[in-house]
Amino acid sequence: MVVVMEERATEQQIEQVVARLVEMGMDVHRSTGVTRTVLGAVGQGRPDPGLIGVLDGVHEVIRISEPYKLASRTFKSEPTVVTVGEVRVGGDEVIVMAGPCSAETDEQVRATAAAVRRAGAKILRGGAFKPRSSPYSFQGLGEEGLRLLHDAAKAENLALVSEVMDISQIELINRYCDMFQVGARNMQNFTLLRELGHQQKPVLLKRGISATIEEWLLSAEYVLSGGNTGVILCERGIRTFETATRNTFDVSAITVVKKLSHLPVIGDPSHGAGRRDMVAPMARAAVAAGADGLIIEVHCDPDHALSDGAQSMFPSQFDRLMAELRIIAPAIGRSICLEPAVRSGRST
Amino acid sequence: MVVVMEERATEQQIEQVVARLVEMGMDVHRSTGVTRTVLGAVGQGRPDPGLIGVLDGVHEVIRISEPYKLASRTFKSEPTVVTVGEVRVGGDEVIVMAGPCSAETDEQVRATAAAVRRAGAKILRGGAFKPRSSPYSFQGLGEEGLRLLHDAAKAENLALVSEVMDISQIELINRYCDMFQVGARNMQNFTLLRELGHQQKPVLLKRGISATIEEWLLSAEYVLSGGNTGVILCERGIRTFETATRNTFDVSAITVVKKLSHLPVIGDPSHGAGRRDMVAPMARAAVAAGADGLIIEVHCDPDHALSDGAQSMFPSQFDRLMAELRIIAPAIGRSICLEPAVRSGRST
Amino acid sequence: MVVVMEERATEQQIEQVVARLVEMGMDVHRSTGVTRTVLGAVGQGRPDPGLIGVLDGVHEVIRISEPYKLASRTFKSEPTVVTVGEVRVGGDEVIVMAGPCSAETDEQVRATAAAVRRAGAKILRGGAFKPRSSPYSFQGLGEEGLRLLHDAAKAENLALVSEVMDISQIELINRYCDMFQVGARNMQNFTLLRELGHQQKPVLLKRGISATIEEWLLSAEYVLSGGNTGVILCERGIRTFETATRNTFDVSAITVVKKLSHLPVIGDPSHGAGRRDMVAPMARAAVAAGADGLIIEVHCDPDHALSDGAQSMFPSQFDRLMAELRIIAPAIGRSICLEPAVRSGRST
Amino acid sequence: MVVVMEERATEQQIEQVVARLVEMGMDVHRSTGVTRTVLGAVGQGRPDPGLIGVLDGVHEVIRISEPYKLASRTFKSEPTVVTVGEVRVGGDEVIVMAGPCSAETDEQVRATAAAVRRAGAKILRGGAFKPRSSPYSFQGLGEEGLRLLHDAAKAENLALVSEVMDISQIELINRYCDMFQVGARNMQNFTLLRELGHQQKPVLLKRGISATIEEWLLSAEYVLSGGNTGVILCERGIRTFETATRNTFDVSAITVVKKLSHLPVIGDPSHGAGRRDMVAPMARAAVAAGADGLIIEVHCDPDHALSDGAQSMFPSQFDRLMAELRIIAPAIGRSICLEPAVRSGRST
Repeated sequence: MVVVMEERATEQQIEQVVARLVEMGMDVHRSTGVTRTVLGAVGQGRPDPGLIGVLDGVHEVIRISEPYKLASRTFKSEPTVVTVGEVRVGGDEVIVMAGPCSAETDEQVRATAAAVRRAGAKILRGGAFKPRSSPYSFQGLGEEGLRLLHDAAKAENLALVSEVMDISQIELINRYCDMFQVGARNMQNFTLLRELGHQQKPVLLKRGISATIEEWLLSAEYVLSGGNTGVILCERGIRTFETATRNTFDVSAITVVKKLSHLPVIGDPSHGAGRRDMVAPMARAAVAAGADGLIIEVHCDPDHALSDGAQSMFPSQFDRLMAELRIIAPAIGRSICLEPAVRSGRST
Repeated sequence: MVVVMEERATEQQIEQVVARLVEMGMDVHRSTGVTRTVLGAVGQGRPDPGLIGVLDGVHEVIRISEPYKLASRTFKSEPTVVTVGEVRVGGDEVIVMAGPCSAETDEQVRATAAAVRRAGAKILRGGAFKPRSSPYSFQGLGEEGLRLLHDAAKAENLALVSEVMDISQIELINRYCDMFQVGARNMQNFTLLRELGHQQKPVLLKRGISATIEEWLLSAEYVLSGGNTGVILCERGIRTFETATRNTFDVSAITVVKKLSHLPVIGDPSHGAGRRDMVAPMARAAVAAGADGLIIEVHCDPDHALSDGAQSMFPSQFDRLMAELRIIAPAIGRSICLEPAVRSGRST
Repeated sequence: MVVVMEERATEQQIEQVVARLVEMGMDVHRSTGVTRTVLGAVGQGRPDPGLIGVLDGVHEVIRISEPYKLASRTFKSEPTVVTVGEVRVGGDEVIVMAGPCSAETDEQVRATAAAVRRAGAKILRGGAFKPRSSPYSFQGLGEEGLRLLHDAAKAENLALVSEVMDISQIELINRYCDMFQVGARNMQNFTLLRELGHQQKPVLLKRGISATIEEWLLSAEYVLSGGNTGVILCERGIRTFETATRNTFDVSAITVVKKLSHLPVIGDPSHGAGRRDMVAPMARAAVAAGADGLIIEVHCDPDHALSDGAQSMFPSQFDRLMAELRIIAPAIGRSICLEPAVRSGRST
Repeated sequence: MVVVMEERATEQQIEQVVARLVEMGMDVHRSTGVTRTVLGAVGQGRPDPGLIGVLDGVHEVIRISEPYKLASRTFKSEPTVVTVGEVRVGGDEVIVMAGPCSAETDEQVRATAAAVRRAGAKILRGGAFKPRSSPYSFQGLGEEGLRLLHDAAKAENLALVSEVMDISQIELINRYCDMFQVGARNMQNFTLLRELGHQQKPVLLKRGISATIEEWLLSAEYVLSGGNTGVILCERGIRTFETATRNTFDVSAITVVKKLSHLPVIGDPSHGAGRRDMVAPMARAAVAAGADGLIIEVHCDPDHALSDGAQSMFPSQFDRLMAELRIIAPAIGRSICLEPAVRSGRST
């Protein structure tokens, strides 16, 4: 911690700050300049910057280390590869997760799963418990939805990710899925994060719509510090003043996270854009910026979807997008699933 | 719902939109202008604006009713008074809730409770379960903290509010407190909100740091629609580009909410400001703007607080603030607790 | 400047940073901690933090002094009182500036000026050159508007402030007005600011809708560094994600600015709120938070105003507001014009 | 315009609104639903939505046409190609503009110009008049800088773009450059925009850091309505709550603008990112999202640049980026300058 004193700070004020830091377990180096005194505090203590900041004569307090550890590049410089079912996320291959916003019917889930696998997706996404802004909106099928998703994923040899909204749902999601998804609204549900830290299966952690990158990594730290090392981060758009798009897809966050952390990071262009016709450009941008993967809403009949229909792609749009991504990925030394039919040893 | 067609929309496109709306249970009025066609859709259906918006030829879709009902002034035009313990919030008197960020020790809680009651507070606030951005920060005393708060509140004849972070904590909070506090990070924890809708005691619902006023009222709707009519809203600062303050205290939200909703709304200047020396100006501004109350962090020894020390007021600062508020409240036809010692029939 | 090195920074990287800082005219103090090295750089040089930040091994660069000087409390600890015509802004009295958005007709200007003076305003506001988002909106009357405003101000013994949009208008505004107003959109029109620095009359500098407080004070510095010491700052709302209000009136900025700077700061609740019915609450909040004054749009017939009618108050609303402010001001040791008729020695 | 009445609006209130709209030159269609009345107003009038919105009984007012015309796809559905010198922007080829932030010396400008041309840039960028937040920063070389840029551009067969900050600089920029650049801070300097509308040469219009897309297009409308049809839009990052990057590069704005307008739109990843190591990912993302071009800061010796050194690329980084872009462009059916040396008929 660095404490910058005011230009007019008195000797007594400076000494009080030094005393307070020492009391908090820090060693203090004092540096006196022409106009100001600057105090460098190092040690094992964890002084609260706010408390120092309100002492008399203090101009500014500056933290010099990230508040997260296990999530940082400083702690682990090699990129982490997270295994979801049998799919490796964070390696050379850009992994695409796709599927409906919500599981609705057996047919809808199966048709969509088949379509996304044919196009090259490796993980099926789909919701059974839906966080909806309004209590009057469709809230998901619950366990029945999980069963539909599980069966379709199995039939198509896809791994499965689905959202968990509360600790009471962990067991159920764990039974049917290969990865827990934590939604943007729950990014700081610390009770939930702490419990997921004790699970074996990986966690897909979406960024809150107004979370700073630091807060996002601190939420990852909650999971990591519980012992679960499988965290995949997911940028899905932030809230800004602009209303022409539902959210502002923060593509630069992908680059920043890869610099600060060893964890894989993927993009969610469906929620970032909020409109079907903007999903493909944002998906391409995310891969071009270096994302380790994508999660995309695809629906076999989006016009009749019970939720998020407006931002769900038609299967044909998704096919075209995958073809475009196969051109872009090599520009940054990545590949993307080339021949899914051959790979899985089954005819399409 | 109003659907504005593109200027170049064809007759066929218009008819498809009309057909879709009718399929969704709406009656459609068509209005043809010089350059555009506008469709007004009314009825019992709940068409998804997004799904209409992506149809060919549609320029824009406009919702014409608020998505919340029970929380709106349209539903109930008289202001709601919520009773917390024996304290009425939402009437002529501006109610002040005050106390430490977290319960730490018996002495700290008792000394602070006594101080805030003497100054005129009517409800004690204090946390036992603390949502902290970092897993390495102090997380609260749990049930022991609730017991300390409860005993101090009882001794000082104050009502008590404390934060609930998860449905698993509801029973405990219910046992010790007069009101459930839902923190900003949980404003869209719908599992929690739905469960609180089935409780008897009122809910203090803080606004999320990036929640729109509409989303905030929708979260209130989750509680109200479960049958619990006691919701108090609390503005506590929003996240903006400005970094000179921790959050931007959105004082205008107080005015907007009072216009849109019948629910009481209070201000939390401590979190809005983030610095002790800015709490008083923001508290005065909130009351001047028409807030029904305030919730303020006060600590008998803020320099040694385990959390939020930098924004906790000294008791002497709180006294001065209460005196200022007693001058301001009458400007808008409100009163504020004048003689707490006399009122409660006990010596201070 | 403080340079925090990465934990893994090599000795060679550290030495390169030191060398670069010395080359830039700084003395460097090196502080080696358990995990990191921190460099403190002091001296007469003005190193670019960005350039140091991209050097190998650098974790973070922290500026330790504000980039502005003349505008800071460090430079001048006493509050500055700016004289506008014969009105002193920044002293004990809260000064209210009021008038129409634009000058439209002789009658409209005179009637409005008379109304605001009767209620206690001391400075007339009104626009002749209007910055409008659309090229198709009313752009103001130009010099004719200035003449109308000047005559009405003189007749009512009010000082006059009007907006200057470009250096080509300075001479004209100077001829008719007592203060130059710089609008939010021109807050970083540095050519204009520099030129106003050479004028004798004071400058009312509105905050840009997305300007940080630091940028705002830097813009004041442009004027001050040219020799013009009469700068009044004006908070008028910032742009945030919230769309329920046109802007978010940042009342906390008033408090922050008074801490960082000696310059007077006033509030503009009309633009902050954007709706007539929200002007009074925001005006009260600004004064309660410590503003040195207010600037408010009042129109004798707002329903037929050519610009900003929706946010212009009726004279009767303005009267009521002034009465409320007279109750609030003493709460913070301020007064507000009590008997304007008596003061000016004329009957109303 | 659509006017949604409150549920409790009286017949008299409705009639007053209708009368007001008719007075403003509109035809009104009235649509009475179960709970509300909705009024559709069409015609040649230009009613101020704000003024209608404050009438009694009005719930909401909704504009149904964009406020800009000449800039919209409705007005012109074919994409516009703007010619800068001899370079066509907005066609199949992705055009890259590159060069130093500021012209500093003859050598610096020449070396940088040669480097960017070799890599495939077609337009040289460089500033002579610099808008700087602080009055104490380097403000540019003025006309001498323009001369250096002009000579270097000519020697390398590049077109030239440079920033104009004030109407007094138009003549000078016009003499030396092929395109006027309007910076983000001047996006709503309407005096300047109006004057540029009368020029022959095209205008590169950067988006203000907090400008909505609608405001940006309205600023373009100022230029277009003056008769100058050559406007190129440039996204350069918006201001959000995130501080890990200087701005948030709003890549989705590129897609939105291409949908709403026929004007070409390019990306400025240098200002969007603010750090050299983030320029390439953002540049790739912009092209992947469909940008018609890029403007990038490159400096032959960025470590000693007088401005923006931290975000200026080394020539070798720029070479690598151009190679990556050549892979990405075909994914969306675009090309990017393949063999600049051959094209210009000169050896490199």
